[in-house]
Amino acid sequence: MFRSFPYDDPFKAPCDHWSTLYQFFLPEDIRPHGLMLPEIIKKMPWTSDFHVDHAARAVYLRPEDTTSDLSTSCSNAFSKLTQRSIDQDNFAVIHKTHSELYPIVGYKHRVSFERYFDNLFGFVSRGAHLTVYSSTQDGMKIWVPRRSAHLFTYPNCLDTTVAGGVAAGEGPFECIVREADEEASLAEELVRKETKACGSITYVGLTNPGDSGEQSLISSDVVYVYDLELPEGIICRQNDDEVKEFNLMSIEEVKKGLGAGEFKTNSALVMIDFFIRHGIIKSEEEKDYTEIMARLHRKLPLPTAAG
Amino acid sequence: MFRSFPYDDPFKAPCDHWSTLYQFFLPEDIRPHGLMLPEIIKKMPWTSDFHVDHAARAVYLRPEDTTSDLSTSCSNAFSKLTQRSIDQDNFAVIHKTHSELYPIVGYKHRVSFERYFDNLFGFVSRGAHLTVYSSTQDGMKIWVPRRSAHLFTYPNCLDTTVAGGVAAGEGPFECIVREADEEASLAEELVRKETKACGSITYVGLTNPGDSGEQSLISSDVVYVYDLELPEGIICRQNDDEVKEFNLMSIEEVKKGLGAGEFKTNSALVMIDFFIRHGIIKSEEEKDYTEIMARLHRKLPLPTAAG
Repeated sequence: MFRSFPYDDPFKAPCDHWSTLYQFFLPEDIRPHGLMLPEIIKKMPWTSDFHVDHAARAVYLRPEDTTSDLSTSCSNAFSKLTQRSIDQDNFAVIHKTHSELYPIVGYKHRVSFERYFDNLFGFVSRGAHLTVYSSTQDGMKIWVPRRSAHLFTYPNCLDTTVAGGVAAGEGPFECIVREADEEASLAEELVRKETKACGSITYVGLTNPGDSGEQSLISSDVVYVYDLELPEGIICRQNDDEVKEFNLMSIEEVKKGLGAGEFKTNSALVMIDFFIRHGIIKSEEEKDYTEIMARLHRKLPLPTAAG
Repeated sequence: MFRSFPYDDPFKAPCDHWSTLYQFFLPEDIRPHGLMLPEIIKKMPWTSDFHVDHAARAVYLRPEDTTSDLSTSCSNAFSKLTQRSIDQDNFAVIHKTHSELYPIVGYKHRVSFERYFDNLFGFVSRGAHLTVYSSTQDGMKIWVPRRSAHLFTYPNCLDTTVAGGVAAGEGPFECIVREADEEASLAEELVRKETKACGSITYVGLTNPGDSGEQSLISSDVVYVYDLELPEGIICRQNDDEVKEFNLMSIEEVKKGLGAGEFKTNSALVMIDFFIRHGIIKSEEEKDYTEIMARLHRKLPLPTAAG
């Protein structure tokens, strides 16, 4: 997934993969906020709020409604486009349903779009992952859930203890508190008090078979990572139907799961980052240590902060 | 320092800063291992082991001695060049002295050069930094040394508790164990038992006035970061003349020192990484959080692992 979108060699011309992409622009910002494939440009049921410039390989959102503020008019433009996409049912990722609202990351106005548009537009998306672990007399153990068989993305895969997309108007930590109850039955008070923010990982990948939707869409993600160490007695158990079961796994068992490709792709990255931060993967034993650290914290090709 | 060597925009041609550089090549490896400025190419007292190709903007090490193995012949070629540079005294960074031996990172043969050649050739250098902290009733406190006034680089600056360059034939952790005794009087047994490897940071910068040597040389560094939490009673104190004094600083005091530019440049980065890993800098409060994480873990333009 990650090798398929390489960094350019600074001594050579930019690689071909950039030359076919369309950049997506928002009002009052000269920086692109999305990266779209030509076939998506063709299939998207554009409304009159959007202007596609094929010569410039650019899409501009210029809301027809000029009386509302930009937050409202841009969000409404996305909302109309979503409804058209649902009605026409021409994108597998949308599969005729509405989803949560996500914010456009790095834009100075609060504009939201529906989650399933994410990779179609190549917007930056944000997730929050919490790794819950305990120190036992047999060494460190990690609470690892198995995803339910009915899920649209990565069914039956192993996952981070708690994980979710950061919704519009929500901070990463609030996302963790919410999901920790929903997914792992962890009490809010405990999570608020003991959870530690430990950084973020960033990567650019192309969507792959595990995503079940359109393939090879550009996915630029920020994942905020959190740790929670629990005393041995407290357990994680499923609270909704997204999780099939929880297991308290040894480091060796987790490594085996990673090696067998059993983890959801980005959850595998979160686990590798956890292993590096906790000294389980050491520079003396892993020759690609520095390269792994750089790839886990890629500079995204799109803004992540208001310019 | 770090803004002065930006990433290229993938939608544009490579930036000018790459076009003037000379790439440095080693035998049996098609990947460049160094990035040299034209004025250094001109001033370097090249021996017949080195071949400068101005048209290709490349320097090739092709040792005249073809009977020894490449480790020996390449290391000897650097050794001869170092002696000439010392004799001619035309580089401020070398200032007529010999230094430690550093390895060429990411090369399949063990080749070493003297530390002061590092930035002249634009090789990747490796350091190891240990942050020592205690949980006190007034919150977390960090042991921060002030560098001696007589040091060649960054005199009088604040620094990481323990830090050093990783020498040839040494691992990052062994470097920490050695320097923890030399710089902070920390017992080997304690350091070996309690120190935790927590990742690495990578950056590309241009040397600046704090370096006291040639300016604007390209410095690509890997810094392996370690944490050591001590019970309140154990203290750090200077053991050699590189440290002027140690202070157990509160987080607020460290932040003040960072804001005032009192820290050695890369030690400031290590502190910021520590603050992020320990939830002291939070994504909710720092709008450039993701950008900072990416810049602290830059993909270096040179190999860090044998290809």
